[in-house]
Amino acid sequence: MLFVVEGEKSVLEGLSAFASQVELLACLDAFYPQIPSQFHSKTFSVTSKELEHISELKTPNKCIAIFKRPVRALLSNCFTIVLDGIQDPGNMGTILRLADWFGVKQVVCSKDTVDCYNSKVIQSSMGAIYRIPVHYTDLASYLTQTPQQKYGAMLNGTNYKKIDYPKDGILIMGNEGKGVRSEIEALIDIPVTIPRFGEAESLNVATATAILLAEIIQ
Amino acid sequence: MLFVVEGEKSVLEGLSAFASQVELLACLDAFYPQIPSQFHSKTFSVTSKELEHISELKTPNKCIAIFKRPVRALLSNCFTIVLDGIQDPGNMGTILRLADWFGVKQVVCSKDTVDCYNSKVIQSSMGAIYRIPVHYTDLASYLTQTPQQKYGAMLNGTNYKKIDYPKDGILIMGNEGKGVRSEIEALIDIPVTIPRFGEAESLNVATATAILLAEIIQ
Repeated sequence: MLFVVEGEKSVLEGLSAFASQVELLACLDAFYPQIPSQFHSKTFSVTSKELEHISELKTPNKCIAIFKRPVRALLSNCFTIVLDGIQDPGNMGTILRLADWFGVKQVVCSKDTVDCYNSKVIQSSMGAIYRIPVHYTDLASYLTQTPQQKYGAMLNGTNYKKIDYPKDGILIMGNEGKGVRSEIEALIDIPVTIPRFGEAESLNVATATAILLAEIIQ
Repeated sequence: MLFVVEGEKSVLEGLSAFASQVELLACLDAFYPQIPSQFHSKTFSVTSKELEHISELKTPNKCIAIFKRPVRALLSNCFTIVLDGIQDPGNMGTILRLADWFGVKQVVCSKDTVDCYNSKVIQSSMGAIYRIPVHYTDLASYLTQTPQQKYGAMLNGTNYKKIDYPKDGILIMGNEGKGVRSEIEALIDIPVTIPRFGEAESLNVATATAILLAEIIQ
């Protein structure tokens, strides 16, 4: 399985982080000198018109790269973010960027969560996609098999500030509209809630993740 | 000055919150019964083809409304979020939604901050646009004239958790790429920083706002 990266900074970051995964590069002649020589044999020169055709961006960058998706081992006994059906690529990318800021070692997703190699996820992850392993699995069986303490963001749980979190807990975040599905909710040990002081109906899932991570990891 | 709202839920929420500001409504016949009778004289029937032409959405909703922008007084002595040059409408909308969750009374923006009545801001604010007053002003002179304690999100400040925040402070958040501009930085009393445990270069401004608000307002 492959994935596509656009934009000078993201491509160069990928070449450095995922050197052994590089499949193909297409770039403008002007950008060629910036590509490390070890990748020159995999690099094709394209015109800006051709780049426009293959790019998903409105204003295409100077380079596009294709990488092989890495296979990484599922870790046990480390703090883990679990995503149950997140749909919006911007939210997914923002959560990966948060995980990268807070030193989270892995993200485990339900199979219907948005693909982490979606171009908008990669863009909003700001390089986190190279550093944070993301796994897709049957969440119910994953959670059943892990003995770690499971916290889930819910509307009627314990105030998230009143809890002592272990170093290796699991934080479960649900879908943008529907929250955590009931099958997964049943596997949560401690539902946690961010108290509301105003009138908004809900918080965006990425901002809720930010608030919970800032409390759990300190 | 006017602004446009699309989508059934947003329009109905606007009719209720901004009843005296309603200028014009355009909706499909099927949606007409849902519009309170007091607005019927301002409502035009449109076909789905016509709606498609006037809508900014890819899959247009059943109704579009035009409201007059409200004029609201700048409050003093209440907790205030200040935005210095935020450009992304999604970030702006998410910050308004956060303000609405945390009961923040107003947001004050530099004149080059994205327009809070931008359709993408309205969409991502999830109704907060009706509840949170947003002001655009010369930030330097606003901050100079307010005696309240000023906290600014910076990369090299005090750990944000080690501070006792007053109830009426001002939280200053900077532009996505450039942060707070130096002219405004000079007016910050206490620079605050969210400690990093991983490798990400920075946090998204909306998620950083979320983390700071959750600490300040409790």
